[in-house]
Amino acid sequence: MSWVEGAAGGPFGIHHLPYGVFSTAADPHPRPAVRIGDFALDLRELAAGPFLLPWIRPAFGALDLGEFMAAGPAAWRAVRLQLTELLTDDHYAAEYEHLLVPIDEVTMHRPFAVADFVDFYSSEHHATNLGRMLRPDSEPLLPNWKRLPVGYHGRAGTVVPSGTPIHRPDGQSKGPDGAIEFGPSRRLDIEAEVGFVVGVGTELGEAVAPDRFTDHVFGLVLLNDWSARDLQAWEYQPLGPFLGKSFATSIGHWVTPLEALDPARTDAPAQDPAPHDYLAEADRFAYDLTLSVALNGTEVARPPFAQMYWTPAQQLAHMTVNGASLRTGDLYGSGTVSGPEKSQWGSFQELSWGGKEPIRLPDGSERTFLEAGDTVAIGATAPGPDGETIGLGEVAGTVTG
Amino acid sequence: MSWVEGAAGGPFGIHHLPYGVFSTAADPHPRPAVRIGDFALDLRELAAGPFLLPWIRPAFGALDLGEFMAAGPAAWRAVRLQLTELLTDDHYAAEYEHLLVPIDEVTMHRPFAVADFVDFYSSEHHATNLGRMLRPDSEPLLPNWKRLPVGYHGRAGTVVPSGTPIHRPDGQSKGPDGAIEFGPSRRLDIEAEVGFVVGVGTELGEAVAPDRFTDHVFGLVLLNDWSARDLQAWEYQPLGPFLGKSFATSIGHWVTPLEALDPARTDAPAQDPAPHDYLAEADRFAYDLTLSVALNGTEVARPPFAQMYWTPAQQLAHMTVNGASLRTGDLYGSGTVSGPEKSQWGSFQELSWGGKEPIRLPDGSERTFLEAGDTVAIGATAPGPDGETIGLGEVAGTVTG
Repeated sequence: MSWVEGAAGGPFGIHHLPYGVFSTAADPHPRPAVRIGDFALDLRELAAGPFLLPWIRPAFGALDLGEFMAAGPAAWRAVRLQLTELLTDDHYAAEYEHLLVPIDEVTMHRPFAVADFVDFYSSEHHATNLGRMLRPDSEPLLPNWKRLPVGYHGRAGTVVPSGTPIHRPDGQSKGPDGAIEFGPSRRLDIEAEVGFVVGVGTELGEAVAPDRFTDHVFGLVLLNDWSARDLQAWEYQPLGPFLGKSFATSIGHWVTPLEALDPARTDAPAQDPAPHDYLAEADRFAYDLTLSVALNGTEVARPPFAQMYWTPAQQLAHMTVNGASLRTGDLYGSGTVSGPEKSQWGSFQELSWGGKEPIRLPDGSERTFLEAGDTVAIGATAPGPDGETIGLGEVAGTVTG
Repeated sequence: MSWVEGAAGGPFGIHHLPYGVFSTAADPHPRPAVRIGDFALDLRELAAGPFLLPWIRPAFGALDLGEFMAAGPAAWRAVRLQLTELLTDDHYAAEYEHLLVPIDEVTMHRPFAVADFVDFYSSEHHATNLGRMLRPDSEPLLPNWKRLPVGYHGRAGTVVPSGTPIHRPDGQSKGPDGAIEFGPSRRLDIEAEVGFVVGVGTELGEAVAPDRFTDHVFGLVLLNDWSARDLQAWEYQPLGPFLGKSFATSIGHWVTPLEALDPARTDAPAQDPAPHDYLAEADRFAYDLTLSVALNGTEVARPPFAQMYWTPAQQLAHMTVNGASLRTGDLYGSGTVSGPEKSQWGSFQELSWGGKEPIRLPDGSERTFLEAGDTVAIGATAPGPDGETIGLGEVAGTVTG
């Protein structure tokens, strides 16, 4: 149990310890932090003293988490052990509590520079729902879907931290009469996802097997892949989504280290047909995260991450089997997380069934896609040790215009 | 005329002056250079002295061209004027010729850090050829093709400099009997393209009109978008190319500033239907580059860049009309350059008509797709001032395995 007041029992207890980047009015330089309760512990300042192992201290003098992420699993484990000791042993309280900055006094920044951004499409329920809407007369899943984790590259330069306002994108779309129109998107949507962050890169030509997942992936962030469905529908043949996605992708402020989610490991769905050898997992597992999607403060869905057909370890293996190299800061999204029930669907495309079945909000209004001023916040919880619950914070954004 | 011996009349004469990054055995630190004849002029060393304008000197102390690219059009013009003066006025020869490093003594590096990589698909002849092969029973061009420049994001982390060996990618593909196979690609191909390099970025929400092209784009490089056709054919529905492209994209060592190509401006093809306003150009022009594709030293195609249906200014306008921001180092490829004649097609997919019509090489052998040890070099020439010809160097790569 931590000596930090209020940390026990909350989403950011001693078993979570996610990393982020913050600044304050008094010191506007972005710097790494670890979250405990309602505080950010200033890691730059901690690393300026003798507590942390000397070889890791320089990484926390950087402007973001990149150097620490690149340091690899041994460093991640060592720092987590040291931070756990610091924050649980009362003897340290007097010396270090001045490094705790109240969370309502910090400005949070993007936690790492995004190298490449890849987005997958790995929920069977989501892909089936989309297939039913887009191709009502044929099999909802295309033939490749159960053979490989379908994915594509997105725009790394427009990955923004939670809270960044979301401009409604202009673009071409096909109107109801078939005419091509140009203007602001009328079908602005979200995709509730989990993002995985690469710490340790690879060389060109090196494939990463699924069982090496924890050697390369540093942690995870909540991710909202904002989508303009009308732009996407017109543009995406034959080379995939482009402007319908590239205007913004939001990520959470706090990167949860994979180790914090060891208690949340659970069985992943069985796969039929069996995947090719390069996608086969000796120890196949899912993370038992339950997402929560809130529109203007009202929860509209609770997507279950553990039911994703393709796991993050398989996604990593697929992404690299052709010899594509990884870099520190590579980010890959799970794809929209949707479960079998309507209450578990992670996009308004699904929740409103392509705009045909508006959802009703508590104030009596209805919603299909997002309107000006709408705020979407995606959160998640996961089981921690000893019956506790870890809360992954949230990724939020408000639509302007 | 330049005082540098041998520069006149060659591809790297005084009217070209492309920028690159080099090192030498004696000084292995990568540093910016400008190319003149068979020499690299060391810009780091030049900037250490009094010749260049003081405010631009720090940019040439960087490890690549990024800082200079970010400095904007006024800086680009000023430096080009100063370098032209330096290299044409004989009075400077004695003082500065020791900064010329013979090109056969340098190691060339990737000239800039690639931020995001976007690849377009803007040759009508290429898109028509592909459409005929892939969808023989329908219109070769999809309905959106003449309405917008179709494009998608590629993998920035695997953009490599000319000369980097190309590993044949492993992946899934559909065999002739319909069974899904896994192994090395059997249809390894090239795409002969021209890449455009962004110098000056934008903020989120800011669209860049076509007539602001030269405010943002620093220059161009030759680009080979290596493609595994068999992997691509199986994976690309519905989200576009992924592993079939992400294993490697090669770019040339030398970035040609746009200004050097002013004499190469020519008419671009007329467009029907007229494009939407955001794609309309007050001064529509193409660059009259003739590409050359050589396989193991034999020229197999001469694709004409001026015939691309969508211009680089339109591509930039489309890419940003949804408010997606630009960053220094963003790279976008034209898409495969193909003309109307078979001798002008920029991929083996086209040259061998999907593998059905092998091309014959001078040694009597035949080729459909690339084999182990094959080297592909793509070059280009453009008209310079006074009847001279500018040569853009080459982007080359050899397939291993």
